[in-house]
Amino acid sequence: MRSDTEHFQCTIEDGIARIRLDRPERKNPLTFDSYAELRDWFRDLAHDDEVTAVVILSNGGNFSSGGDVHDIIGPLTRMTMKELLAFTRMTGDLVKAMIGCRTPVISAVDGVCAGAGAIIAMASDLRVASPAAKVAFLFNRVGLAGCDMGACAILPRIIGQGRASELLYLGRAMTAEEGAAWGFFNRVVEAEALDDTALELAGRISKGPTFANAMTKTMLAQEWSMSLEQAIESEAQAQAICMQGNDFKRAYDAFVAKQKPVFEGD
Amino acid sequence: MRSDTEHFQCTIEDGIARIRLDRPERKNPLTFDSYAELRDWFRDLAHDDEVTAVVILSNGGNFSSGGDVHDIIGPLTRMTMKELLAFTRMTGDLVKAMIGCRTPVISAVDGVCAGAGAIIAMASDLRVASPAAKVAFLFNRVGLAGCDMGACAILPRIIGQGRASELLYLGRAMTAEEGAAWGFFNRVVEAEALDDTALELAGRISKGPTFANAMTKTMLAQEWSMSLEQAIESEAQAQAICMQGNDFKRAYDAFVAKQKPVFEGD
Amino acid sequence: MRSDTEHFQCTIEDGIARIRLDRPERKNPLTFDSYAELRDWFRDLAHDDEVTAVVILSNGGNFSSGGDVHDIIGPLTRMTMKELLAFTRMTGDLVKAMIGCRTPVISAVDGVCAGAGAIIAMASDLRVASPAAKVAFLFNRVGLAGCDMGACAILPRIIGQGRASELLYLGRAMTAEEGAAWGFFNRVVEAEALDDTALELAGRISKGPTFANAMTKTMLAQEWSMSLEQAIESEAQAQAICMQGNDFKRAYDAFVAKQKPVFEGD
Repeated sequence: MRSDTEHFQCTIEDGIARIRLDRPERKNPLTFDSYAELRDWFRDLAHDDEVTAVVILSNGGNFSSGGDVHDIIGPLTRMTMKELLAFTRMTGDLVKAMIGCRTPVISAVDGVCAGAGAIIAMASDLRVASPAAKVAFLFNRVGLAGCDMGACAILPRIIGQGRASELLYLGRAMTAEEGAAWGFFNRVVEAEALDDTALELAGRISKGPTFANAMTKTMLAQEWSMSLEQAIESEAQAQAICMQGNDFKRAYDAFVAKQKPVFEGD
Repeated sequence: MRSDTEHFQCTIEDGIARIRLDRPERKNPLTFDSYAELRDWFRDLAHDDEVTAVVILSNGGNFSSGGDVHDIIGPLTRMTMKELLAFTRMTGDLVKAMIGCRTPVISAVDGVCAGAGAIIAMASDLRVASPAAKVAFLFNRVGLAGCDMGACAILPRIIGQGRASELLYLGRAMTAEEGAAWGFFNRVVEAEALDDTALELAGRISKGPTFANAMTKTMLAQEWSMSLEQAIESEAQAQAICMQGNDFKRAYDAFVAKQKPVFEGD
Repeated sequence: MRSDTEHFQCTIEDGIARIRLDRPERKNPLTFDSYAELRDWFRDLAHDDEVTAVVILSNGGNFSSGGDVHDIIGPLTRMTMKELLAFTRMTGDLVKAMIGCRTPVISAVDGVCAGAGAIIAMASDLRVASPAAKVAFLFNRVGLAGCDMGACAILPRIIGQGRASELLYLGRAMTAEEGAAWGFFNRVVEAEALDDTALELAGRISKGPTFANAMTKTMLAQEWSMSLEQAIESEAQAQAICMQGNDFKRAYDAFVAKQKPVFEGD
């Protein structure tokens, strides 16, 4: 995996990729370029074996302010429908790429997390926050609908239909405390401990059976709109595949030998 | 929009329709006539531009006791299957009309909120309550199934499958406190502040970009059973439509001018 | 219904079946035989009229440790794909049979509830717990994926997508307190009161309109992946069927006579 990205920060160490959106002095807004580069990066990840967990960290006390007003919103107000649709499909493709990247993604949210920033947190698998986190699906405050990059489908499954409706109709910020109580955040820790908490979770996942973890991620998305019967048959097939994996044997052998299994991801 | 309704109370002011079920001395039960008139009223709303938010208020300390035992349940016990199906389809059509009305609906629940009354609250977009609210999906206490007017589909998405199952199998009342903890109620306030809280929320939504809000409502329903890929593509299209709207330009212009946007709903 | 089961304990009294997994000295693991017998028992239940509620109780302070390491996991590591798929389909068929058995199922979880044990609790309609309950979807700790027996579809609908993701990626135990806060458990009571609480709930459900309850269970599963419009039409049909039932008349007659209805399940 490339870590020499141009429009966002990326380092890779011990199988864990650390991403930070850039330009902290402006609260790390997204631009046309960073959208596209993030989309391409997550698409590549689907075919990569080295990175086994991704953390998206805050930068300078904020996660992301979303689409930049001058760089993105201004130009959008002057586009043709064809151009607009190309843009909204590109942003949607970022979410599709995150969901399809076969690698668990953990967002660590400090401070402002708004618009497309809130969507990136939402499209992650796990989310941790500092008490100062403010997650705002603020599309309706800029004259747009709440249905942006999958929010009307995904947010209700995380926090429930009624709470999602409130956030999407009002555009108001969800606090860290609300996010924890509602199941948006898996954990809230002091800002100083935020990166370490996300990295510790990523480390535990990364030391797990990564081929099987990738299957978990695939199936969480795949079963989204299946019937119960279809989902159960799909899981029978997916788990049978994992049962022929070597990590399953490694776990069994370790158990018999009263040791801790060391997974190798195949 | 008509406010001269016969079988429920309706006033329209500043783009906000206030509805109250009627006959507070009997806790505002529904009748064949009020079901049909509500269904027609919400159907008309889909084609109306004047009303931009609806609040369904309690009346005399109660929201609604549901289908009247004498006016509805008695006759139902003597109907043919054809007549029964016509009735259950009419009640289902009320929920479909509320979901399809393209206008956010806020229920303000005080006291008894039972049977079809609970369904009307459930089918609203947002819900506020007084501490005395008691929401009972009590169908099984009158010998019926919990699958009434969409409850087995909608209630689990608001409060989770396990809690919904309990309410539907037992028919017991959910308290205001439970409703707030479980995400059924967006807010619980003292009875004296209930109407104002609902109206304040309606006012905020009404001052928002109402064309975009209508799109949010459409998509929350539309994406209910889509795959993630389908939902994300649908939102790309829906949001592109909103980006060609004038409210999006108004928000951008206001931002550049450091002013608060004034939305006009186109 | 048979209560002379060989591989798990079963007694039937007053229409309520009490099931306990067996071998408490090993925390009641599942075996190939008990999987198959449970699947067959729940399949038979779909055609039975006598049992109107099922409780799955803990045994010796634990619910179940899941698939036995020696009896199940060892052999699985040596199977062909054809044999593995036969196994995963059998375990999935147990969940399908529980969902399709037309009878409400209540799990009473004390102590260890892991792997396939956690799945059995998840696939129940209601769940109660003691403070010592530890529910672990620990598949990834044995080198497998979280998509086991429907978990990636069902668990997110009970506790939300974010919390389910955490449990499935980490394999960590959910405490009783978390389970109650997240909607997995309907109630947490002291261990001494656990069986009675489950039996009391089962008794209330059993005294309800059991034909209608079976319809509620059918529709909760049936509407899983329907559109809202489809779900509402399906409920119109399902409820019309129940309105021609005698229990609906019994409830009405009892109401008019100011008595408590006695339901007979037709």
